[in-house]
Amino acid sequence: MEHITFRPTVEQMAFTFGGADPVMRIRPGTVLTLWTEDAFGGRITSVDDVAATALDTEDLNPQTGPFWIEGAEPGDTLAVHFVDLTPARTWGASTLIPFFGGLTSIPVSPTLQDPLPQRTWIYEYDSAAHTLGFSARGSDFQVTLPANPMLGTVGVAPARREVRTSLVPDAFGGNMDTPEMAAGATCYLRVNVEGALFSLGDGHYRQGEGESCGTAVEGAMNVTAIVELIKGGGPAWPRLETDTHLMTVGSGRPLEEAWRAGQFEMIAWLGELYGLDRLDAYQLLTQISQNPIANVVDVNYSSVTKIDKRLLPAADAYGGVHAALREAARGLGAITY
Amino acid sequence: MEHITFRPTVEQMAFTFGGADPVMRIRPGTVLTLWTEDAFGGRITSVDDVAATALDTEDLNPQTGPFWIEGAEPGDTLAVHFVDLTPARTWGASTLIPFFGGLTSIPVSPTLQDPLPQRTWIYEYDSAAHTLGFSARGSDFQVTLPANPMLGTVGVAPARREVRTSLVPDAFGGNMDTPEMAAGATCYLRVNVEGALFSLGDGHYRQGEGESCGTAVEGAMNVTAIVELIKGGGPAWPRLETDTHLMTVGSGRPLEEAWRAGQFEMIAWLGELYGLDRLDAYQLLTQISQNPIANVVDVNYSSVTKIDKRLLPAADAYGGVHAALREAARGLGAITY
Amino acid sequence: MEHITFRPTVEQMAFTFGGADPVMRIRPGTVLTLWTEDAFGGRITSVDDVAATALDTEDLNPQTGPFWIEGAEPGDTLAVHFVDLTPARTWGASTLIPFFGGLTSIPVSPTLQDPLPQRTWIYEYDSAAHTLGFSARGSDFQVTLPANPMLGTVGVAPARREVRTSLVPDAFGGNMDTPEMAAGATCYLRVNVEGALFSLGDGHYRQGEGESCGTAVEGAMNVTAIVELIKGGGPAWPRLETDTHLMTVGSGRPLEEAWRAGQFEMIAWLGELYGLDRLDAYQLLTQISQNPIANVVDVNYSSVTKIDKRLLPAADAYGGVHAALREAARGLGAITY
Amino acid sequence: MEHITFRPTVEQMAFTFGGADPVMRIRPGTVLTLWTEDAFGGRITSVDDVAATALDTEDLNPQTGPFWIEGAEPGDTLAVHFVDLTPARTWGASTLIPFFGGLTSIPVSPTLQDPLPQRTWIYEYDSAAHTLGFSARGSDFQVTLPANPMLGTVGVAPARREVRTSLVPDAFGGNMDTPEMAAGATCYLRVNVEGALFSLGDGHYRQGEGESCGTAVEGAMNVTAIVELIKGGGPAWPRLETDTHLMTVGSGRPLEEAWRAGQFEMIAWLGELYGLDRLDAYQLLTQISQNPIANVVDVNYSSVTKIDKRLLPAADAYGGVHAALREAARGLGAITY
Repeated sequence: MEHITFRPTVEQMAFTFGGADPVMRIRPGTVLTLWTEDAFGGRITSVDDVAATALDTEDLNPQTGPFWIEGAEPGDTLAVHFVDLTPARTWGASTLIPFFGGLTSIPVSPTLQDPLPQRTWIYEYDSAAHTLGFSARGSDFQVTLPANPMLGTVGVAPARREVRTSLVPDAFGGNMDTPEMAAGATCYLRVNVEGALFSLGDGHYRQGEGESCGTAVEGAMNVTAIVELIKGGGPAWPRLETDTHLMTVGSGRPLEEAWRAGQFEMIAWLGELYGLDRLDAYQLLTQISQNPIANVVDVNYSSVTKIDKRLLPAADAYGGVHAALREAARGLGAITY
Repeated sequence: MEHITFRPTVEQMAFTFGGADPVMRIRPGTVLTLWTEDAFGGRITSVDDVAATALDTEDLNPQTGPFWIEGAEPGDTLAVHFVDLTPARTWGASTLIPFFGGLTSIPVSPTLQDPLPQRTWIYEYDSAAHTLGFSARGSDFQVTLPANPMLGTVGVAPARREVRTSLVPDAFGGNMDTPEMAAGATCYLRVNVEGALFSLGDGHYRQGEGESCGTAVEGAMNVTAIVELIKGGGPAWPRLETDTHLMTVGSGRPLEEAWRAGQFEMIAWLGELYGLDRLDAYQLLTQISQNPIANVVDVNYSSVTKIDKRLLPAADAYGGVHAALREAARGLGAITY
Repeated sequence: MEHITFRPTVEQMAFTFGGADPVMRIRPGTVLTLWTEDAFGGRITSVDDVAATALDTEDLNPQTGPFWIEGAEPGDTLAVHFVDLTPARTWGASTLIPFFGGLTSIPVSPTLQDPLPQRTWIYEYDSAAHTLGFSARGSDFQVTLPANPMLGTVGVAPARREVRTSLVPDAFGGNMDTPEMAAGATCYLRVNVEGALFSLGDGHYRQGEGESCGTAVEGAMNVTAIVELIKGGGPAWPRLETDTHLMTVGSGRPLEEAWRAGQFEMIAWLGELYGLDRLDAYQLLTQISQNPIANVVDVNYSSVTKIDKRLLPAADAYGGVHAALREAARGLGAITY
Repeated sequence: MEHITFRPTVEQMAFTFGGADPVMRIRPGTVLTLWTEDAFGGRITSVDDVAATALDTEDLNPQTGPFWIEGAEPGDTLAVHFVDLTPARTWGASTLIPFFGGLTSIPVSPTLQDPLPQRTWIYEYDSAAHTLGFSARGSDFQVTLPANPMLGTVGVAPARREVRTSLVPDAFGGNMDTPEMAAGATCYLRVNVEGALFSLGDGHYRQGEGESCGTAVEGAMNVTAIVELIKGGGPAWPRLETDTHLMTVGSGRPLEEAWRAGQFEMIAWLGELYGLDRLDAYQLLTQISQNPIANVVDVNYSSVTKIDKRLLPAADAYGGVHAALREAARGLGAITY
């Protein structure tokens, strides 16, 4: 297996899905070890940095990539297996951005109310204990939380000639912001353009479901992933597989539409795996679906539909590629950066 | 502790929150052992029963109650602790009701498309193994699922003189349809009228999050609960507590509004428990919130905001009433019906 | 024709649809001359009165009624023709109520932002010129606007045993807040309970579409209406007819669902009037529909679908009852209060 | 004034806002006489052509342009005045596209229901009478409707490096589908990229508000417009001005968010024109706003906020550019194609 290490310069970072030139061409099966800048472009480094002065709102959420996958054609399935995610800094940051987040009015749904005050939190990352320290700003409350590294943004170029900012989640993946996008997961994405133009970024050292205030514990991330190509079979919406779960991710607005998209996609998947007709799959899903919300803060909202594999007979999705990639990942041995 | 057993006659069942005469008056601290009819009014008993012919749409989701709680006044908090939920039949039923459910058009958001075909599934309940048997109708696929008894509907009379059908979830509780409403949980509801007028029903032997097709594995249920009254402190939205989690339930439409209501309520609760100001609570919640969807099929949708207690310092919500009720429940010994 | 005059005492006012005892029984064909209190209960009388101190939020939007219509049965159609609406005071009031309105966060979709400042406007009503004077509070801008009297709230008791506050619009009518509910219009409502239990209120001396800030130029109103009963034919959603237009009003959330309900109802009506199948009616409506929003501030939002009769062949809706009521209204001569 | 005539070849048509090379560079003040293909790419020509076989879903809604406006910089205001719109064919077409439209489930909000049947309508255009003939397909109903030519799609390149399909309306304009975009109107758009990259298309010979079924009476159009540039002052959302009205167009999902955006923009405009503070502008708008829905069928929904100029003191928006363009248009004399 080819193993490529890549750390983008500031000039090489991408801020869109589609529209950016590939940073390199890779063959299916390549192992990538990447570094990703945080969603703030590294501009929030202390509690005194606030969004209005520190951030360049045209340059948010830089992506590492895009990568041109040799042989990828529209309708194919890109499988990205996350081998390892390791925080690349000793601290992560979260901040309240004016008129951004789940419990404030936003420009596309404005009110006449004043914005929330700006406030920034820095979480110290203890790499030995694998924890993050939260310190309240308005009182002396402190608590230590387990780190839970994940990627907010994983995607390919969109269909219909579009170029979308890296702030948007949609059928092409993008800024889904689900904690499920963690080491051990395989993400399946439909290829929309030749070469797929895959990129990723937006590392979170930890995030709750929903990403309530709009920013997780944001931090630069070391990422090791294996990129595989499956000819045909491209799903309408992103799918995820772990050793224990099958998942689909719908994105849209209002939130129930994101949910419907994810449910519909899972019904299709159950049909593929078990030969269930749509009504039986709908019924079975009704009784076994888990539905963690991913984000309610981005341009589209994202909703995860999740099934515990233990409830169902064994089935090899995409010819068992997840198990094969897990095996390949184990073959890489310990990952260090 | 007083222990009352009550099984309503058909005539005694209630179909609204508010508006129905209390079936009895009970004192705070009373243990109730109740029987609840299923949401179909017991009218679906075989795969040949379909909604259009079997159901009386004016008589769906019958409730057991309401109970007048002595001393309950508007603004108080009713705490209902679920000691035990045990299926009262050897089978549960689920059915597709025309123009009802998450993946069909519905009367309040109509399309010109034909309804989905009607289809009914019967799940055999194995009380020894505590499992449910699913049999596909369109193929020979079969699978056995763990039972997970819960109540779809728990609520009190609404505010502002309203009477609402038992099909609606809202600030008064009602048809929230969350799998979290299970044995071991304590549900906190704001009292809106004198006597609270508490009732419950809609037993589910198992339900996935979202209740996709609109009907869970519906079944008559034996319920044992302890009803406690806390003076004052009534929450704006229902709260739930288990040994391991704190939860709030927002209901509304579109789904993001239900989510916002639940998040806002949890921020208030974190402030009460830990003295966090609202921005700090918002930030902390962003990193620790779990967000399982409850239902996307009822008149309002419901969204759960959930926190793992282990992530936070110990705190006694409502003066530790949940722990006290757990202790009292253990004192009841084995529950049989 | 029987002609009844009724002015409710404070104790006689209703705050719900359903649940209130009828103030009187009337026969179909009765002319009613009524007085309605404003939505504030008359409590805002100067620019110094603000919502937080002046209003009793449990007693908003008092209704005149309900009236029991002899012979009205579920499934029938109540036709209410508005002969005249005349302001009953020399001034109207509008005020910003904290966390209420279209451009503020609201309790069912909360944010952490502060409420908007409170501010009240008094509009002098010039009954000779039939105008209202607007005076800005933050500058010396003044403008005189034509009065356009209408009723925010017209409805009957809901179905399914429900009792709803007079703040809600829904299939039973209620607080639709459309400027189309003016003199010359006939409103058709489905009867849901015996006697129909019809009431009205919430006079607006003028209101823009959407009722942006949540309160129109609110004022006590003198109302003359003829109430007619049509056996059967009850529409799923409220319909309106004037000499020039056919209209339907859908209510719900999100706003597109209110729109869909109104469109679907109009497609049904076009089918009844012209024998069009549903696809042809959908197509024709696509090219001729007018869609003024009614309100985006109430518990449900309301959307009007409106057709200019001149675009279509003449057709007698409900056997020409609107024309007959117009004729009867003319027979009443000049209306004075 | 320079007067340029341009009719794109099939290869010159654009299918995106942003991302396409300009067809030419023009100076501010240029008169453009353009031809636009219909949204179907001219592929629906008889009632036997249906969407599934006739349409290329990757090539819908072709645009004429984009035009590079000399001197246009981000933050400027592009003013496009429509001098004349004249149908370029003797017939227009409307068709039901599977899973597209306002009263069907759609891919981003899927249900398990079957699609609506496909059906196409051809409207004969009588250029002398300026009418369109509707013939029902399922019965012998016929009616003649006035033609009301308009453009569904007018826009510039989006901000944040994005490229969007011509099917989307948003802050950059695009596929707003409002009947207000007709001869006599001036459209103001914020410039987001150098040169603005303005284009237009999607002629409708007639459309109701909402564009219910998703396709208006679509037809090739002859368009004459004057393109002017105002330095600075770029509005957040598209604005429209006619001799009689001021309008803003918000787009988004759910529909209430589109409404809020349009309302907020109008409040800003009222502040600019009359010095009203935001609360006074909010109040005044509440009483005078008209709110015709534009579309409830596209990727974003669009809502118009509209004010009758006669209700307000005279004010020269953008230095009176609309009046000046009207005058210039009259100077062009009769427009022929």
